[in-house]
Amino acid sequence: MMLRPLALTMGDPAGIGPELTVKAWRELKDKETPFFWIGDATLIEKAVPVKRISHPEEALSCFGEAVPVLHAPCAVPVTPGQPDIRNAGATIASIEQAVRSVLAGYASAVVTNPIAKHILAKAGFPHPGHTEFLAALCDVTGKEVMMLACPQLKVVLSSIHMPLRRAIETLSTDRIVEVALLTVHALKRDFGLECPRLAVAGLNPHAGEDGMMGTEEKTIIAPAVEQLRAAGVTVNGPMPPDTMFSAAARPHYDAAICLYHDQGLIPLKTLDMAGGVNVTLGLPIIRTSPDHGTAFDIACSVEQGHADASSLVAALLLAAEMAHQRFGVKT
Amino acid sequence: MMLRPLALTMGDPAGIGPELTVKAWRELKDKETPFFWIGDATLIEKAVPVKRISHPEEALSCFGEAVPVLHAPCAVPVTPGQPDIRNAGATIASIEQAVRSVLAGYASAVVTNPIAKHILAKAGFPHPGHTEFLAALCDVTGKEVMMLACPQLKVVLSSIHMPLRRAIETLSTDRIVEVALLTVHALKRDFGLECPRLAVAGLNPHAGEDGMMGTEEKTIIAPAVEQLRAAGVTVNGPMPPDTMFSAAARPHYDAAICLYHDQGLIPLKTLDMAGGVNVTLGLPIIRTSPDHGTAFDIACSVEQGHADASSLVAALLLAAEMAHQRFGVKT
Repeated sequence: MMLRPLALTMGDPAGIGPELTVKAWRELKDKETPFFWIGDATLIEKAVPVKRISHPEEALSCFGEAVPVLHAPCAVPVTPGQPDIRNAGATIASIEQAVRSVLAGYASAVVTNPIAKHILAKAGFPHPGHTEFLAALCDVTGKEVMMLACPQLKVVLSSIHMPLRRAIETLSTDRIVEVALLTVHALKRDFGLECPRLAVAGLNPHAGEDGMMGTEEKTIIAPAVEQLRAAGVTVNGPMPPDTMFSAAARPHYDAAICLYHDQGLIPLKTLDMAGGVNVTLGLPIIRTSPDHGTAFDIACSVEQGHADASSLVAALLLAAEMAHQRFGVKT
Repeated sequence: MMLRPLALTMGDPAGIGPELTVKAWRELKDKETPFFWIGDATLIEKAVPVKRISHPEEALSCFGEAVPVLHAPCAVPVTPGQPDIRNAGATIASIEQAVRSVLAGYASAVVTNPIAKHILAKAGFPHPGHTEFLAALCDVTGKEVMMLACPQLKVVLSSIHMPLRRAIETLSTDRIVEVALLTVHALKRDFGLECPRLAVAGLNPHAGEDGMMGTEEKTIIAPAVEQLRAAGVTVNGPMPPDTMFSAAARPHYDAAICLYHDQGLIPLKTLDMAGGVNVTLGLPIIRTSPDHGTAFDIACSVEQGHADASSLVAALLLAAEMAHQRFGVKT
């Protein structure tokens, strides 16, 4: 297996993506985590040495000296903090190119810079977000599952961007089992865990306290846990949601299966707002991203920005580790 | 205003309450936080010096040398870890006596040891828990509100022990406003904050993202925030629930108004499982308690126990601080 670089997308060119890319390169250039950026080289070449490349393979030899860039020009000039729908095409093309590079075997993983859904939507982009678009590009629509990871905790969400009321209505035994099995598969293949341990959250206070505060634990969640056990999965649950993320409880599982967006994201961001990494499970490719948005409000010229690149750096490092696990070599 | 001791209840005598009481006394006996215990003296007097008192006032002079105990004997002998409904009467009488002591002006605050709801229920106790019983004893049923506090965070819950589905159904602008105003009042009177700052949580992912992921923010929560602002309260919201508890966000408010049990308890217990304190707002008296249960599974003889008294110690210290704020003297 050849050594391959990570493919990093541009994200919205008016957001903090270019600045984060520069900062991540400075932090990683002397480490074994080479990446190439698919974006408009003019956005960063005043701040750092840039090497325009024509193929991902060229990234490996130059990464220590310059940011390798597959140049993908924006349609109109970029003003930091002021997104322009005329540049949506370049943002989308960067993602498509990154996925193609990985599917073709030239890159080891896709790492995405933040996009602005409302800008892309205005430009006619039909997907709710990155995750769904990537699933479509990989031809696995509906199989995508979101994991959020920080050093202390991994959470996997059985539902993501829907009203809480609807997350409860759509809760099902089948979905919990599907998400849990996907998680076990990913923890084995990409995180190097031989026998992953899961914790499945309850839905209600105290996990329903034996039916006194809700019945979904008995009718939906416990049956999912039973099915998983029958399938050989090491799993506990339904767990009382308030105590399962405590420092004492976390060492007892490798990932928590959470039943709604905030059940998983509240503890993760309470623990680690800056360094959380979004990992998409259920794709044929490895994909990570920082766990924040475009931050148009603080976006400014690459040389003057104060954006925190910890999450992008963590996303790049985690993607490299996952690729190492999956392919058996360092990226 | 006279110096007054804290009234500490027995809790379930077969739980960890006696052990915690002994440990808390050892930790606090040289500090200015005198308390007296209303319980069965025989449960602790082998482990520590005990001074049986007949009036709360006697606690002040002996606290440094012995645990002051208003002796309230159990009906039948106690076996740690094996609760007996025949002792429910003593558990309940201890709580009643504590409240009477504070209402009469002999004690500064009630601090409760854990009770077992299912044991008390079997003995005919009609209240869902401590909090509701205390409200009834103080003749303010329905006004009680739960705050959980740790050094990094205070959360106040607009609903507590009900299914998540029902917490959403019963959400109302009036309830949020009521809970928030009660919180402001308590933060001023008992926590010494001149101009308390509140953060009101949203219900849905990203606080609904402008209605795309739920409408309760627009129809219920934002109107509550508006009413509060009109009433002169410093308040932000509806806040995206996942980011509002991060280390960067927490310094911007003094208390978070949360819309369901786990929205508030997940971040609190993620941050501080052992040291969280339960504070009941809306009562005429000050009441705190440790944020855990009877732990029958680890209850054993007082001398041999390994229970963690941090939360009870924190509850006693916080009650003392609150009394100091409210009454203008150290307890």
